[in-house]
Amino acid sequence: MPGEATIMSTDHKPVLYTHPMSPHGSIVVDFLAAAGLIDRVEQVVLDFGKGEHKAPAFLAVNPVGQISGLRDGDVTVFESDAIIRYLALRFKSPLFPHHDLARVGLIDSVQTHIRQKAWDHGTGLVFQKVMKKLFTGQDGDPARIEAAEKGLEKTLGFIGDTWFKAGGDWLLGEISTADTTLATLLSNAKRAGYAPSHPRIQAFYAHWRAQPFFAHSPYAKD
Amino acid sequence: MPGEATIMSTDHKPVLYTHPMSPHGSIVVDFLAAAGLIDRVEQVVLDFGKGEHKAPAFLAVNPVGQISGLRDGDVTVFESDAIIRYLALRFKSPLFPHHDLARVGLIDSVQTHIRQKAWDHGTGLVFQKVMKKLFTGQDGDPARIEAAEKGLEKTLGFIGDTWFKAGGDWLLGEISTADTTLATLLSNAKRAGYAPSHPRIQAFYAHWRAQPFFAHSPYAKD
Repeated sequence: MPGEATIMSTDHKPVLYTHPMSPHGSIVVDFLAAAGLIDRVEQVVLDFGKGEHKAPAFLAVNPVGQISGLRDGDVTVFESDAIIRYLALRFKSPLFPHHDLARVGLIDSVQTHIRQKAWDHGTGLVFQKVMKKLFTGQDGDPARIEAAEKGLEKTLGFIGDTWFKAGGDWLLGEISTADTTLATLLSNAKRAGYAPSHPRIQAFYAHWRAQPFFAHSPYAKD
Repeated sequence: MPGEATIMSTDHKPVLYTHPMSPHGSIVVDFLAAAGLIDRVEQVVLDFGKGEHKAPAFLAVNPVGQISGLRDGDVTVFESDAIIRYLALRFKSPLFPHHDLARVGLIDSVQTHIRQKAWDHGTGLVFQKVMKKLFTGQDGDPARIEAAEKGLEKTLGFIGDTWFKAGGDWLLGEISTADTTLATLLSNAKRAGYAPSHPRIQAFYAHWRAQPFFAHSPYAKD
């Protein structure tokens, strides 16, 4: 099985450095919640006010100095998608099943598509409508807000039209990291007041929020 | 071993749909070249002039209708990074070793970092300095060209300062998909006349081009 030769011990928990305001940390936590792994990974919330994300302890985990980062014994992993893939391999999660070549290839395709094509519109919208005001006191740029909203509508419309073909409420039949990625994007964009117009995406997100594991999401109280 | 249960047969070659002008196709081909897999995957060059990238045959592989896409029997994979991970799992490549949890986590972190933080500056520069003139007859936007060049210098400077710690000429000791990703980025940006100023990145790229397998790169004649 993958990884067995190099997992030294399982008597420690991997530590995820995150922050509930960061979609890049929350995308990992949403995966952990949906995968039933929330108790298998310790979460440490970095204090930006104290500059903990630029402190040597965190830079040793993620030299970029941005949320998120993972320490698993001597192993360090960063960039949220790489962390999700690592944890899926580590815990043999069916949400990104490395033992099923055909399915993992499809899941990776759709997950990567969402990150490459839709994700940045969501983070851009939140920056313009929420963060900019919060940190600079200035309003967001109306043209950029409009562009981000149009970008979300277009890319989410494509996703809604193209997948969900296997029936059921998830993108690819059973729940996968493609779903957890899409859900984090929608939860983040919701913080900027965005609600998708595509009925399939609306139904997906309502279904996501109705899951018992959603209680462990950083967005559970939004 | 990963994937064995679902690889039905090995008497067919996976088919990669690509184009030598596309960095998203070439990043897969550069991986195949460096991994010694160039003869294990058939390459089909799509004819944009004939609209083959929007034809049903290709849309069945990649519903997005963009380079690249992979067909492996009944399995279809798209988004270039997902294709690389799929092929690495399929052929058990040491360049992205799923059997070595610690190393694959590190490789994935650095590869994803390059794609998330540096890559778009390269494609943006080529669009502004090469593609725009070619397809519209108009010159690129000087401000965007300058921003892309500054973005490349900053992100490649960070990469040069942060990795290459294990000695030798590759980012993480032995060659990996982090290297093939960085090499494709540099080959693509070179088409827009860009040469990195960081000595470690310069040495890396010279080393890459000196490898015998570079003859199989889409950039071999540049």
